[in-house]
Amino acid sequence: MYYTLKQSCYEANMQLPKLGLVLFTFGNVSVVDRENRVFAIKPSGVPYETLRPEDMVIVDFAGQVVEGEKRPSSDTKTHAVLYSHWEEIGGIVHTHSTYATAWAQTQLDIPILGTTHADHLTVDVPCAPPMSDELIRGDYEHQTGWQIINEFQRRGLTPTEVEMVLVGNHAPFTWGKTVDKAVYNSAVLEEVARMAYLSCTLRPEVPRLKEALVQKHYERKHGANSYYGQSC
Amino acid sequence: MYYTLKQSCYEANMQLPKLGLVLFTFGNVSVVDRENRVFAIKPSGVPYETLRPEDMVIVDFAGQVVEGEKRPSSDTKTHAVLYSHWEEIGGIVHTHSTYATAWAQTQLDIPILGTTHADHLTVDVPCAPPMSDELIRGDYEHQTGWQIINEFQRRGLTPTEVEMVLVGNHAPFTWGKTVDKAVYNSAVLEEVARMAYLSCTLRPEVPRLKEALVQKHYERKHGANSYYGQSC
Amino acid sequence: MYYTLKQSCYEANMQLPKLGLVLFTFGNVSVVDRENRVFAIKPSGVPYETLRPEDMVIVDFAGQVVEGEKRPSSDTKTHAVLYSHWEEIGGIVHTHSTYATAWAQTQLDIPILGTTHADHLTVDVPCAPPMSDELIRGDYEHQTGWQIINEFQRRGLTPTEVEMVLVGNHAPFTWGKTVDKAVYNSAVLEEVARMAYLSCTLRPEVPRLKEALVQKHYERKHGANSYYGQSC
Amino acid sequence: MYYTLKQSCYEANMQLPKLGLVLFTFGNVSVVDRENRVFAIKPSGVPYETLRPEDMVIVDFAGQVVEGEKRPSSDTKTHAVLYSHWEEIGGIVHTHSTYATAWAQTQLDIPILGTTHADHLTVDVPCAPPMSDELIRGDYEHQTGWQIINEFQRRGLTPTEVEMVLVGNHAPFTWGKTVDKAVYNSAVLEEVARMAYLSCTLRPEVPRLKEALVQKHYERKHGANSYYGQSC
Repeated sequence: MYYTLKQSCYEANMQLPKLGLVLFTFGNVSVVDRENRVFAIKPSGVPYETLRPEDMVIVDFAGQVVEGEKRPSSDTKTHAVLYSHWEEIGGIVHTHSTYATAWAQTQLDIPILGTTHADHLTVDVPCAPPMSDELIRGDYEHQTGWQIINEFQRRGLTPTEVEMVLVGNHAPFTWGKTVDKAVYNSAVLEEVARMAYLSCTLRPEVPRLKEALVQKHYERKHGANSYYGQSC
Repeated sequence: MYYTLKQSCYEANMQLPKLGLVLFTFGNVSVVDRENRVFAIKPSGVPYETLRPEDMVIVDFAGQVVEGEKRPSSDTKTHAVLYSHWEEIGGIVHTHSTYATAWAQTQLDIPILGTTHADHLTVDVPCAPPMSDELIRGDYEHQTGWQIINEFQRRGLTPTEVEMVLVGNHAPFTWGKTVDKAVYNSAVLEEVARMAYLSCTLRPEVPRLKEALVQKHYERKHGANSYYGQSC
Repeated sequence: MYYTLKQSCYEANMQLPKLGLVLFTFGNVSVVDRENRVFAIKPSGVPYETLRPEDMVIVDFAGQVVEGEKRPSSDTKTHAVLYSHWEEIGGIVHTHSTYATAWAQTQLDIPILGTTHADHLTVDVPCAPPMSDELIRGDYEHQTGWQIINEFQRRGLTPTEVEMVLVGNHAPFTWGKTVDKAVYNSAVLEEVARMAYLSCTLRPEVPRLKEALVQKHYERKHGANSYYGQSC
Repeated sequence: MYYTLKQSCYEANMQLPKLGLVLFTFGNVSVVDRENRVFAIKPSGVPYETLRPEDMVIVDFAGQVVEGEKRPSSDTKTHAVLYSHWEEIGGIVHTHSTYATAWAQTQLDIPILGTTHADHLTVDVPCAPPMSDELIRGDYEHQTGWQIINEFQRRGLTPTEVEMVLVGNHAPFTWGKTVDKAVYNSAVLEEVARMAYLSCTLRPEVPRLKEALVQKHYERKHGANSYYGQSC
């Protein structure tokens, strides 16, 4: 069962080392099956070199294993909360990619400084602040999902407009309508984080991108009259 | 038709990922056919892994598609303006290469600090300031071409002396008499941008290269009595 | 004799260039045989490309060669002191990996800034201060072992809780219950050092990770109720 | 004629791209034949991908071509002056490797901060100041050789103790008893430059390595009682 879902999840996971986004096992990808309200996710701590499609674990939205012999990723409950709350997303990626994680460690948003950023989102990449000690000591991974959702609500963001977040002191999560888009977003985030690091250390008082450019670049890729790509 | 032009454009585009200058589809190369007043350019949003010579799009200097089934790069009008206005250039490259783009985000020129830079141009790499909101909301990519040309006129630069520019907040464009030279310039610019980043963060008050060295290095490669390379 | 020990030592050494942790011969790995109170270690100054399992040198805990035709690593006495004093460790790795060494050169501990760090240890990565001139001029490599052990005692650390150290002005050493874990720790240390470098240069006053997060992440990987990985 | 010399020079040149020290044609290696007072050097501007052993050019110590159909490297006279003046050296390497060149652009010596540096030389890597405008406008590459030699004399350094230099605003030169050592030194210099960059940007007031450590590390590799490597 869930053969296609597992295969799709496996292939997406294998993109992470290829894109240089993971060291050892520091990352995981999941793919949702909305009809059956389950998702496939990487097993915990299994190296990418030995990973097989049949190792993927099927989990429901409460974070309970439905099928699979291995233990799912330790971040499974975070994925479950996001799928359960955000109905528009089809895949989730978590990495500790170097530059995005370095920004998360500073607890700063990644400021929007150029069109590379604006091609993908119109606001700073949000950094959710660390949660309270009580929540950390409680159901931590479940709360990490809520930490993300609450930060989006507080800022008035939707998961279709902004498909990436930094969890303060921790690392990035990205998502998308499809799992391929979620993986793509992880690589884009890492590159945007790297460029912003370079610009900010070169010129600490660097100005944010002016609003007209933000709108122009986002609209030409994502607006009603978009003219980027072949999908017209 | 335009078989050779498309082939040449395809091969030049394929150099970008090989030189580490592009992530996903963040870049495009065009090659001009001066006789027919058209150019070949990469189609928009097509990954380099699946790109084929026959995918290249033939466009005239007004930016209108002359031949090809795919939509051309969203930056096509910028290329068209540059070809139309600057008769000396044979190829144009646009990338979001990391260090050059980080400089563009700071809106600073890349200062001439060493002979690696002076081997290729005698002035700072110019960064064109962001255009006005009216122009951004208008025919944006067309105006980007004019933004570059106007900045060169304002500074008294010619496109044969200086074959590269940063578009402020955006990313670099390079060109050359041939498309191979344009691609070469993109890689040189990225390396010059990286070295300047390192020097400026290591010693913020780093002095510009003295004029005698600027002239010497440029002349030995490009002057009437040049003695670099085998083309004598 | 010691065929398996040499083979294991050889394979672990060959991981270093594969993981990008060494330039030329700047690194060495050893594996201990507790029963016979000897360890296998890389020969000094032999390039990884030409290294063979039979080149490994067998040394006792006094640092004396027991078997092997080649001279052992110049750091052999440091390894001997650590094996002799710390009975829990099974393998030791020494590299001059770029970011960890850059931190060692600053004589600063690597502050704990994020969960990537906390997944592996609950404290800053300790940097042992340079030893006195008398000790340097004496039995230097032997004293380097004591420099590490004394710093751990001074700070109340144990080699099972903290499996890595920076030797001030010099470079990192890592260890582990097995040699594979020691190699893994070297790669983790390099990545943690790189992320901390980026965070500290981006935001010099970056706060340390809050204690609740430190405990949570360490416990979920290493505590009595750990739920990371498949070894349950 | 000079078949072996050309072959040796070719092989050493081909190490540069393999070690990541050159972009395009930004580098050259030469090998001397002391008996015949000539050296083989890379031809100017020929890409490494198409370079052949027979392309190497044989030049005498006055910088005149003795054999070969191609024009020699534009830096040939610098090599000639160094071979002519420093009788101990067997090979010379010039690159524009990224970190070493960034230091040269700052006109700062690379401070000795750790044992990676001290394993190879006991002093800061010297940066020769830019030459006067008159000399630049004169026989520039010849004067570059003298710029290096004069700086060594001014500081009381010998080319056997210190096998590397930064030419201010320009880039590094390294040399060695053999050409293999010269190439090795170029890679070591780049790594030392990179580590020093990281340490200096992380902690601008970073202290220099204490003298006892400088002596210890250099002596253990190069002293009368050296115990590094297998050559005993």
